[in-house]
Amino acid sequence: MSTVNRLKEDLVEAGKFGRTPPKRIERYDQMDPEKGITMLDGTVANKKIRDYAVARMKEAGLKVKIDKVGNIFARREGSKINKGTVMFGSHLDSVINGGMFDGPLGVFGAIEAVRRMTDEGFENERPLEVVIFSGEEGSAFGLGLLGSSVLVGKLSVDEALGIKNVMDQTLGEALEDIGYKGVFERSLDDVEYFVEMHIEQGPTLFREKVPVGIVENITGLTSVMATIVGEWNHAGTTPMKMRKDALVAASDIISFVSRRANEMVEELGTSTVGTIGKLNVFPNDSSIIPGKVEIEVDIRDVRQENMEALKSEIAKSIKGLEEKYGVSIHIQLPMTHPPARLSVEVVDIIEKSAKQVGINTKKMNSGAGHDSQNMAEKVKTGMIFVPSVNGVSHAPLEWTDWGDIEKGTRVLTQALKNLSRLRV
Amino acid sequence: MSTVNRLKEDLVEAGKFGRTPPKRIERYDQMDPEKGITMLDGTVANKKIRDYAVARMKEAGLKVKIDKVGNIFARREGSKINKGTVMFGSHLDSVINGGMFDGPLGVFGAIEAVRRMTDEGFENERPLEVVIFSGEEGSAFGLGLLGSSVLVGKLSVDEALGIKNVMDQTLGEALEDIGYKGVFERSLDDVEYFVEMHIEQGPTLFREKVPVGIVENITGLTSVMATIVGEWNHAGTTPMKMRKDALVAASDIISFVSRRANEMVEELGTSTVGTIGKLNVFPNDSSIIPGKVEIEVDIRDVRQENMEALKSEIAKSIKGLEEKYGVSIHIQLPMTHPPARLSVEVVDIIEKSAKQVGINTKKMNSGAGHDSQNMAEKVKTGMIFVPSVNGVSHAPLEWTDWGDIEKGTRVLTQALKNLSRLRV
Repeated sequence: MSTVNRLKEDLVEAGKFGRTPPKRIERYDQMDPEKGITMLDGTVANKKIRDYAVARMKEAGLKVKIDKVGNIFARREGSKINKGTVMFGSHLDSVINGGMFDGPLGVFGAIEAVRRMTDEGFENERPLEVVIFSGEEGSAFGLGLLGSSVLVGKLSVDEALGIKNVMDQTLGEALEDIGYKGVFERSLDDVEYFVEMHIEQGPTLFREKVPVGIVENITGLTSVMATIVGEWNHAGTTPMKMRKDALVAASDIISFVSRRANEMVEELGTSTVGTIGKLNVFPNDSSIIPGKVEIEVDIRDVRQENMEALKSEIAKSIKGLEEKYGVSIHIQLPMTHPPARLSVEVVDIIEKSAKQVGINTKKMNSGAGHDSQNMAEKVKTGMIFVPSVNGVSHAPLEWTDWGDIEKGTRVLTQALKNLSRLRV
Repeated sequence: MSTVNRLKEDLVEAGKFGRTPPKRIERYDQMDPEKGITMLDGTVANKKIRDYAVARMKEAGLKVKIDKVGNIFARREGSKINKGTVMFGSHLDSVINGGMFDGPLGVFGAIEAVRRMTDEGFENERPLEVVIFSGEEGSAFGLGLLGSSVLVGKLSVDEALGIKNVMDQTLGEALEDIGYKGVFERSLDDVEYFVEMHIEQGPTLFREKVPVGIVENITGLTSVMATIVGEWNHAGTTPMKMRKDALVAASDIISFVSRRANEMVEELGTSTVGTIGKLNVFPNDSSIIPGKVEIEVDIRDVRQENMEALKSEIAKSIKGLEEKYGVSIHIQLPMTHPPARLSVEVVDIIEKSAKQVGINTKKMNSGAGHDSQNMAEKVKTGMIFVPSVNGVSHAPLEWTDWGDIEKGTRVLTQALKNLSRLRV
């Protein structure tokens, strides 16, 4: 099998596990726009893709260890030293009904880079270590970036293992179920660099026909959670002017968020995005005036001040609805993930590596959150993006062309070769 | 036990079954504003309340029969003739998390009326027959007024038995489970009158401090179901101006329905109500731009032309959103229940009966749908309303004062006595 087909085979075979029934998909037109991949940590599909990746790591001659929160590390020692480690990888868990590239591309691309270095007889002077992070997506356990948060010390092992998923199962129990609750504890003391290849998940590279993006900043994320309490009442017997309809109040918030984020982009030229992706109506019965609505506003920007400005405008506008609609609104402001600036040194090395292999690149920002933003707090970190067809991700039609995957993998491999030299 | 306490005991005891854990509630301040009654047909709670009611019917000397869709009939023959039957009753099923009066009041009030006539030694010249309808609320099986629709011949037995609930169980299977799938087939050929006592479910009687309402019209109900399809995409990486957010489009519909219904009431003096009680977001994940939203608009009025006017304005406004937001919207217009005019003869008899027992009444319309609107198509039908505290119903805090229940029951008993005479 050619090297190109080897990585494609891994992605297609691993992507199979998350579909019901399992199905190999090799081309865009084989996808079902309604039915994508679901591979939450703790599911059978997640066990299968982890087992598949571990088998490939061992075949590639790497030494595999599992840590207490299910992160997988696969190491090849350096030929000259055993510190200044170059770590690289991504995650295997997915959102619900997402695509087959978000995460697995970075994992199998990392394994493929190791195989290519072996094939070429390349000797890494520093240690190389592939990592697979647990719980990157927040879909199963509510909180994202779980594995990398433990690795960088922002979250304790016990806190992480105690977080519950929608089935009221803790991460610890979920990992036990699939045999990935290890005993290893990885410190980052010997690690100098981290590199992650990932799909862009946005439209920029695809529209501009650039095969590889080099990430300079990862946008920050903050959110506003609001619970609007109105008066649950009969839809037929309650005159219009006696209503306290929580959904009518919520509709004002939805409009406001969309309108203000658009205005900020148009008038101030920011890269702000504001989204209400989650909204629950209670009791959600066509004959009952909604008595309660819960919404979650997701706000992102590469500049913290823009995020905070939109967030405080939204919170203020929400409070004004209490009088307008006679409802009461409880606001929660969960933790802000600040924007992350990636390592200028690593950005330069990736850029140089791309030139060495003759591949066109573009420096850009990431609109999505990644484990790299955690890693950037402790080690010199860089990210390589490949184009997402039509900018789609976290959706069944998420796709990246095999040619772009090959280009991204060449840049990744070359960058790892450069980083793994004693004198970078 | 006094006659007043006998009916109260039935309602309190029967109300117990729908709560988890079972709890007797005798006073307003004993209610939990979050936890009400759930007694969908086919549940254990529904079996218990049916068993309880059947036991009371038998104690009252009535002959009980169950029909093929679980409607329960309990008859006492007339002393002079066996036709021109006076039928009366209501339903025992509830919405999800509703109250203990909507339905059971009309059933246990009917049984109590029979007991009082017996206590007084009153001889009914025509037959009297208490009825308990299956599936009045649409909460379990989507479609409401199931039992009465079969009785009046608008829905076939097979159609009704095949309708599925949220657990993918048919009405037939649900009735089998609780032992209420009978063999009886009731024709209405011998029935002349139908009377139903029910809580108002609106604020009019409570605010005006009138203990009994006499219903002249039941509002019609029509609805618009819309599925808005946008583009499911990542909330962090998709720039504001590239979005096709189905929820932002839906927020325009929510605002429009509320604003136009309010304007019709204020400018044209109609009694129109328009509500979006049900809204589902897909995939409903805070990091994903909603790709699909389903909404159901409930429109009611006592005048068909007002309902139709609002419905067509809504449908037109919805179509306009396709271009504005780049989404596609599929509209369904389910069957309209036209407004029902109740029998002037029965209204007059109820009014006369109330005067005979010295109880103040008010003629009014019903904003909610009832089995009476089906019965009115075939037999002379009337309804007696009692006040709902604060106008609340279909909610845990649904309540009616025991004093008002006694007054309603006195009017009902007197009206049944008058109707059950050979010459009314």
